[in-house]
Amino acid sequence: MKPYVLGIDIGGTNTVFGIVDARGNVIASSSIKTQRHNDFYLYLDELYAAASKLIEANEATDKIQGIGIGAPNANYYTGRIENAVNLPWPSINLAELVSEKFGIPVAITNDANAAALGEMTYGAARGMKDFIMITLGTGVGSGIVINGQMVYGANGFAGELGHVIVKRNNGRLCGCGRTGCLETYCSATGVARTAREFLEARTEPSILRHLDIDAITSKDVYDAAVQGDKLAKDVFEYTGNILGEAMADMVSFSAPEAFILFGGLSKSGDLLLKPVCEALERNMLPCFKGLAKVILSELKEADAAVLGASALGWEAKRISESI
Amino acid sequence: MKPYVLGIDIGGTNTVFGIVDARGNVIASSSIKTQRHNDFYLYLDELYAAASKLIEANEATDKIQGIGIGAPNANYYTGRIENAVNLPWPSINLAELVSEKFGIPVAITNDANAAALGEMTYGAARGMKDFIMITLGTGVGSGIVINGQMVYGANGFAGELGHVIVKRNNGRLCGCGRTGCLETYCSATGVARTAREFLEARTEPSILRHLDIDAITSKDVYDAAVQGDKLAKDVFEYTGNILGEAMADMVSFSAPEAFILFGGLSKSGDLLLKPVCEALERNMLPCFKGLAKVILSELKEADAAVLGASALGWEAKRISESI
Repeated sequence: MKPYVLGIDIGGTNTVFGIVDARGNVIASSSIKTQRHNDFYLYLDELYAAASKLIEANEATDKIQGIGIGAPNANYYTGRIENAVNLPWPSINLAELVSEKFGIPVAITNDANAAALGEMTYGAARGMKDFIMITLGTGVGSGIVINGQMVYGANGFAGELGHVIVKRNNGRLCGCGRTGCLETYCSATGVARTAREFLEARTEPSILRHLDIDAITSKDVYDAAVQGDKLAKDVFEYTGNILGEAMADMVSFSAPEAFILFGGLSKSGDLLLKPVCEALERNMLPCFKGLAKVILSELKEADAAVLGASALGWEAKRISESI
Repeated sequence: MKPYVLGIDIGGTNTVFGIVDARGNVIASSSIKTQRHNDFYLYLDELYAAASKLIEANEATDKIQGIGIGAPNANYYTGRIENAVNLPWPSINLAELVSEKFGIPVAITNDANAAALGEMTYGAARGMKDFIMITLGTGVGSGIVINGQMVYGANGFAGELGHVIVKRNNGRLCGCGRTGCLETYCSATGVARTAREFLEARTEPSILRHLDIDAITSKDVYDAAVQGDKLAKDVFEYTGNILGEAMADMVSFSAPEAFILFGGLSKSGDLLLKPVCEALERNMLPCFKGLAKVILSELKEADAAVLGASALGWEAKRISESI
């Protein structure tokens, strides 16, 4: 067993990568721009050069056990990125091409699954066999672990809990083309959307009325709520209630011992957590009462993406050994 | 490896048991009344006597690999039945007591999980690693298989998909004490309830108006629909649509390759299956389109409960070997 893995997080803007040890310490990290090259091979050349430099500078040559990559629409089974709208190369066999270039086993998965793996390997879910990671960012992502294993499903795309339907009628239009998805209510953009709706539907005064309504962000709503703004607090109450209700249904599915929340919105403290926990307890089947804890990610946000991806690197080695 | 397992299905009225071989043939079966004894030990004596007689008559003494039991509220992890309202002994350590009596390893689970195991071991799900069994009977039960393993969750009660919420507002009151559960719409009783609602809310003629409205059953609705009754057909359309919508959300969770439907209502043919499949395809996330097939159980209904329970018997042996 070599001492390090390389974690690579491919985002729409930046590709961040880092050398990580078995305890989850990021030894060193760096990044390149994802969008500089429309040709994937030029991107790969640049990534290889930058990562090799980092590896050499940290005396980690021949000490990398595997490479784990988190990327949008990445498929664990096929190693492919498929129809990723935010990347210049929407469909490629990422795992194979990176593995050939580096001469190291590669495993890939999507960002939310990587986050769950990171939490299980180095974070709040160490030792847990059944938990659900929910990432509350621009969208809502999820990574599900059952019996100690990531759930990839029959086609590799399982765990899209941001797209369970929470409003069957007159639900909000989602980026996926459907309406009423959890993501349209409980993401950062969902919170801003709720604030705009409340401001239009209600007449009471609110700090938020001093802002350009179309430019309101979840951060604005948070700041107003912290200052005691009733309408802003109601937005969090509404958001948390929907999320807690949806989580109660997830409990009926897999009876997890915990939900781990991650991402910008999860840092809203009790403003969000209190209504989430209340709605969860209120809506769970009696046989699950008290079962599923709601806890926050233990990974530093700056490192989380690389750590999550790196966790898969240990597995990449196991996969290649098993072949 | 011994050639047989004993499957025991404990229902509220009858306890059915059978000797089953590795190919899913029920060699012989018999039953006793579940409710005759309020004292569990007297029930167990009777069960042991009847099962021993069956085993001896079929020259299966010392040829039973394990005993699998399907029972309401049975917990795979603890071996206990917990708070089973339909049994005279609501909370007991069933697995331990039966195992001591028979001198054979015992594993237990609830009826719907047993059905899923039966389907995976002998039926329509042979070779499948990711599927969801949905039992459409008086209630709606489910058994979930992911990565080739039953999903029991952190407390042993996972897979209660009959109790995901399909109507957040003004949903029907469910036996679980909550409102809007899938079970209140898509069970046999749910179908009858929908028929009554439609008959009251609508004015058109219907064969069902000739019946005592309070006594209408799902079978009455089926018979009317088969005769072309518009209102009765609409009831199935409504039921199938709700079920298909709920199933689309389940796909977002675990991306199964198939749903296997079982139970009385599943035999309604295209009356139910067509709207289920249409709603499922219409509501699935784009990345899952075409993934999850909807198929019917391949187990004979008369044998299914015993077969399902028996499938766990093979596993009981594995558990005891692993200790």
